[in-house]
Amino acid sequence: MDANVKAAPGTQDAAVEAKRQEFYGRIGHQNLTPLWLSLAELVTPEPRSACRPASWRFDEIRAAMMEAGTLITAKEAERRVLVLENPGLRGQSRITTSLYAGVQLVLPGEVAPAHRHSQTALRFVLEGGGAYTAVNGERTIMQEGDFIITPPMAWHDHGNESDRPIFWLDGLDVPLVQFLDASFAEHLDQDEQPVTRPLGDSDARYGANLLPVDHKAGGGSSPVFNYPYARTRDALERMRRAEAWDPCHGLKMRYTNPITGNHAMATMGTFIQLLPKGFSTAAYRSTDATIFVPMEGQGRSFIGDDFVVDWGKRDVFVVPSWKKVRHEAAEESVLFSFSDRPVQEALHLWREDRGNA
Amino acid sequence: MDANVKAAPGTQDAAVEAKRQEFYGRIGHQNLTPLWLSLAELVTPEPRSACRPASWRFDEIRAAMMEAGTLITAKEAERRVLVLENPGLRGQSRITTSLYAGVQLVLPGEVAPAHRHSQTALRFVLEGGGAYTAVNGERTIMQEGDFIITPPMAWHDHGNESDRPIFWLDGLDVPLVQFLDASFAEHLDQDEQPVTRPLGDSDARYGANLLPVDHKAGGGSSPVFNYPYARTRDALERMRRAEAWDPCHGLKMRYTNPITGNHAMATMGTFIQLLPKGFSTAAYRSTDATIFVPMEGQGRSFIGDDFVVDWGKRDVFVVPSWKKVRHEAAEESVLFSFSDRPVQEALHLWREDRGNA
Amino acid sequence: MDANVKAAPGTQDAAVEAKRQEFYGRIGHQNLTPLWLSLAELVTPEPRSACRPASWRFDEIRAAMMEAGTLITAKEAERRVLVLENPGLRGQSRITTSLYAGVQLVLPGEVAPAHRHSQTALRFVLEGGGAYTAVNGERTIMQEGDFIITPPMAWHDHGNESDRPIFWLDGLDVPLVQFLDASFAEHLDQDEQPVTRPLGDSDARYGANLLPVDHKAGGGSSPVFNYPYARTRDALERMRRAEAWDPCHGLKMRYTNPITGNHAMATMGTFIQLLPKGFSTAAYRSTDATIFVPMEGQGRSFIGDDFVVDWGKRDVFVVPSWKKVRHEAAEESVLFSFSDRPVQEALHLWREDRGNA
Amino acid sequence: MDANVKAAPGTQDAAVEAKRQEFYGRIGHQNLTPLWLSLAELVTPEPRSACRPASWRFDEIRAAMMEAGTLITAKEAERRVLVLENPGLRGQSRITTSLYAGVQLVLPGEVAPAHRHSQTALRFVLEGGGAYTAVNGERTIMQEGDFIITPPMAWHDHGNESDRPIFWLDGLDVPLVQFLDASFAEHLDQDEQPVTRPLGDSDARYGANLLPVDHKAGGGSSPVFNYPYARTRDALERMRRAEAWDPCHGLKMRYTNPITGNHAMATMGTFIQLLPKGFSTAAYRSTDATIFVPMEGQGRSFIGDDFVVDWGKRDVFVVPSWKKVRHEAAEESVLFSFSDRPVQEALHLWREDRGNA
Repeated sequence: MDANVKAAPGTQDAAVEAKRQEFYGRIGHQNLTPLWLSLAELVTPEPRSACRPASWRFDEIRAAMMEAGTLITAKEAERRVLVLENPGLRGQSRITTSLYAGVQLVLPGEVAPAHRHSQTALRFVLEGGGAYTAVNGERTIMQEGDFIITPPMAWHDHGNESDRPIFWLDGLDVPLVQFLDASFAEHLDQDEQPVTRPLGDSDARYGANLLPVDHKAGGGSSPVFNYPYARTRDALERMRRAEAWDPCHGLKMRYTNPITGNHAMATMGTFIQLLPKGFSTAAYRSTDATIFVPMEGQGRSFIGDDFVVDWGKRDVFVVPSWKKVRHEAAEESVLFSFSDRPVQEALHLWREDRGNA
Repeated sequence: MDANVKAAPGTQDAAVEAKRQEFYGRIGHQNLTPLWLSLAELVTPEPRSACRPASWRFDEIRAAMMEAGTLITAKEAERRVLVLENPGLRGQSRITTSLYAGVQLVLPGEVAPAHRHSQTALRFVLEGGGAYTAVNGERTIMQEGDFIITPPMAWHDHGNESDRPIFWLDGLDVPLVQFLDASFAEHLDQDEQPVTRPLGDSDARYGANLLPVDHKAGGGSSPVFNYPYARTRDALERMRRAEAWDPCHGLKMRYTNPITGNHAMATMGTFIQLLPKGFSTAAYRSTDATIFVPMEGQGRSFIGDDFVVDWGKRDVFVVPSWKKVRHEAAEESVLFSFSDRPVQEALHLWREDRGNA
Repeated sequence: MDANVKAAPGTQDAAVEAKRQEFYGRIGHQNLTPLWLSLAELVTPEPRSACRPASWRFDEIRAAMMEAGTLITAKEAERRVLVLENPGLRGQSRITTSLYAGVQLVLPGEVAPAHRHSQTALRFVLEGGGAYTAVNGERTIMQEGDFIITPPMAWHDHGNESDRPIFWLDGLDVPLVQFLDASFAEHLDQDEQPVTRPLGDSDARYGANLLPVDHKAGGGSSPVFNYPYARTRDALERMRRAEAWDPCHGLKMRYTNPITGNHAMATMGTFIQLLPKGFSTAAYRSTDATIFVPMEGQGRSFIGDDFVVDWGKRDVFVVPSWKKVRHEAAEESVLFSFSDRPVQEALHLWREDRGNA
Repeated sequence: MDANVKAAPGTQDAAVEAKRQEFYGRIGHQNLTPLWLSLAELVTPEPRSACRPASWRFDEIRAAMMEAGTLITAKEAERRVLVLENPGLRGQSRITTSLYAGVQLVLPGEVAPAHRHSQTALRFVLEGGGAYTAVNGERTIMQEGDFIITPPMAWHDHGNESDRPIFWLDGLDVPLVQFLDASFAEHLDQDEQPVTRPLGDSDARYGANLLPVDHKAGGGSSPVFNYPYARTRDALERMRRAEAWDPCHGLKMRYTNPITGNHAMATMGTFIQLLPKGFSTAAYRSTDATIFVPMEGQGRSFIGDDFVVDWGKRDVFVVPSWKKVRHEAAEESVLFSFSDRPVQEALHLWREDRGNA
């Protein structure tokens, strides 16, 4: 046992113990409880979480999703999503303690109707292409590997006008907003919001290192709401020529909000990383439990003391807070990932241990 | 029922329903669950929390504390604290969904030994005076009404060298740090940390609108760690001469970090407000559940639809997220309060409704 | 005369005046002078500057530059530049009170040797293409309309490996740095700095809304040091479909530093604006004297009470502080411009008057 | 000569030189000049300024001021001030390249009438007490050693209701605002502005580490506009017990804006420093030319290569940019100082050399 963990104080004296127990029972009626019995659980020497390492194979998720597609329509479901539940947090619709993830399917011709909510959502397109997400009057076309944001309280709907099913990963801060008791949501009285701005407008306006001359900085989400994989992948490719490789991360970048240089969203950090064929990372651990989604390649990751996952394209796996992790890339691999790191950074709680993990 | 709340989709067709149920059961083994059954609970039209309005009378807390003083020493308990548990959150050591509060007693001659942790703590002195809190090698003397900070990972201990018991309210971000899986703690191998800086050093250094010439901005907590009540009260008194009274808040100030102008702590906001005799506030609601502690005066508050609390000096009461509240001051009153507002502001989630509450 | 301008106090009484004059002479030896004689000149009701409206035709600048090319080499000159001197500020190497501008020519095969200085420089390519600017070990290829930054204290050199002369506009904060007595400069002991990073590295690293995962915000200049015209022009084109046109500015964007969302440089703001054919702007005035360079189209601008300039591609004209200006575009036009606006914004001095100019 | 200083390129060939000269003359008519003749003067290896070390004895200033008091009234003069002109910058009303300083006298019963301007002003009270400065409807009483701000565009007037003359040092950013062509000024149609807020209101509101609950950060000047010497001196006294003494600065603090933690004003930095009896500082140099005003003690300072000043209480001396300086305190001394450091910091130009000065 960690030397820093103190046991709750006890006593050998049965009479004293009896008096204490009687006292505890009595003050319980006043909504009072003794801290000394729970202190060691509340303030732990290191993060100690119910969240467990976990993984999902995309082909299994896909099969379940296609079956779901025969059992319920996107419109009936509002969002036809299978939630990836952390095995340590069953029944709570969480993939980590603070975050939610699910896989969404929109079949050709379907629409996931317009609503808005104070939760921030990210989409990472796993398979298919040509569907759209509309945000605040502007549509963006979704292609494999694209990372798309629906900011808090922004009207959004999704539609599939292509001839193939589209699958994407949804990541939301649902548990966080629930924890802060700050959930607000509304439904639009029509399935699709009116389109008022041309395709690519946000990207033109905010994605070329230009800003409207009198622009004032606003909320926490990036006004660029689609980070296309083609551009991201090209940036990784050009960087690899100069990059000194990070022993723990390979070549790892975070998606940014060009208005602030900060994370693309206030509550979730998103990352893309390149691991060359044969690259084995050093182990590290950090306080932000992280969801990984390989988008190219295949490899193996070692999480904590005894969890090993062999992953390929579109699979999903989870590294809990403060569990050490290292990756081995059998093929050149690109991994998308996300976590609550911006929250922890804003609150000065984020910590990383690259040394003696 | 709120028109915005959609029921989970169901079906009248028993055969379809049976197939769905079979499907749900099967995918459960893959740690997958259908979002459409839980969406309405996860993304609610308005905050919907287990946290309830609640109140504690100081004389009752005091009596229980004095009894606790006979049952366990400060040293044995590490911290002799009775936790104020929200009646809607029993067994969780929380006063609101995200915050912890307790009342601590240190008897004359006792020491609460030195430790440190990633949780931020505030102390608000309820009764007694002349004890000290030591933070990072500097002691400060605690007097009634003083608001004292122990920043994250700062060594701290408390001792009572006066001849009276001292009682204070502890507020910590324990549930938040637990939720983010970011708890770290250590114990010092001696009860009291060495004193390396004179009394009043931080206040001299940071409390006179002066900063060391090469000071760089640092973490999220104010380097001023004692906000004496005498100074705070005097400021309120001088301001009242010019102030236009806020209908919802009377004269309400937030404690600040003079290095940044932001809240005094990164995770908890602290406030002091003056309500003149006979002042009745307008109702408002906000998303930060708030703990109130009157330090002068007496009055009555109306919380949500049916909770009424008659309060006096040193009592404690809780207003949950998005419950409307209004206060009536029978005597001139001063209320200390705290909440997770800085967290919600940093994440762009905080919302207030002063209009049609 | 403006009612707000007070004349210096005088007196009709010759004896008093004589005593005053004697006094002024005497204290002059102590390096003292009476404020009341100069106050009205020092603190004026409105900006009152020696800077005058001015313009230069590119064909005339070009002819002079080509002649200079026969009189001195780039290497001998260190920088073969003709300074555009404001006619109100002759002999001071300034185009406005706070800024310097010149036109630089590098002939095929020439190198402008490596140096560095605390002054920030911008380049706006007027004619030619295929030359390079190297900054901190990375080269970028310069094309017409590109806006390129050489940040303070960054080693930089220019070379022309194409078969055509290249001309660009240099904008520097030379007068500002001189005014603040903060000039530092060094010469490298070789003409060209070693190339250590591949072409396009900075753009890949910082131009795709991605940042290295552990990047810390740094100095005031954008790490993106080439803003290619092709990308900028495309962004304007896509935006015009949605844009509500600003009466004073048409469609005007500022170049940004993607790390901060602020201006691309700390001391100079840079802007690009589109005026459709036939567009006539409303008059406005602002405190940042501005240098305009049309890169497409032709038109006419009216500056102050009586200055009119007919401009075409690559011409240069200056609008002094607080002089009203309006533009008429005879053809669809794109104007690059720059000013000291970031300085004035940082110091809370910038002011714009769009109303009653 | 510094190896980094390159001479302007010349030629031995008289015919070439003649052609060049003819060329220079001809292009001069087009407002063009060759950079290569002036580059070495514009971009210098180190700051090279006309600003010179200088000093003024208070008793001499005082005598001149008292004589001025017999020659002109405060009202007639608008501000009865003798400007301290740097001997290297005569005729320019500057004490350094970017800053203005003067000494103001208000006799008992006089009023310096209300005006406002975009220039920021600081007052440092040299002798006398009991006069007031009014800013935005609030008066503050001025005592010896107090540092008082009149923010940009804030109405302000001064009056002396005591029975002694009051002398203070005025520091303004007049040259800077002039350089940026951003001067605005207005006169009120009455001598004294109406008093709408009680004495001490700003200090109560912003000086106790409290802010109004809904306060939004605003302009660049501190809302605390009087930093009383009594409080400042007490802070120095308490700090000295713990302080490790800085070899170059003794115990040096900067005045701060409690809303931001930044300098108290956007354009001028203000500092207070304590040198114990017998303390000799190490030499340093920095790019912000600085005006020093000892308020207690006496000593000697060595500036640049050959300037020595023996100073006592209320004297004024100037250290130009990048001139090394060191101080010797014959008695325990307190020095107030100010410079344009915030401007240089905001523009990333400030530099200090503590090592090999």
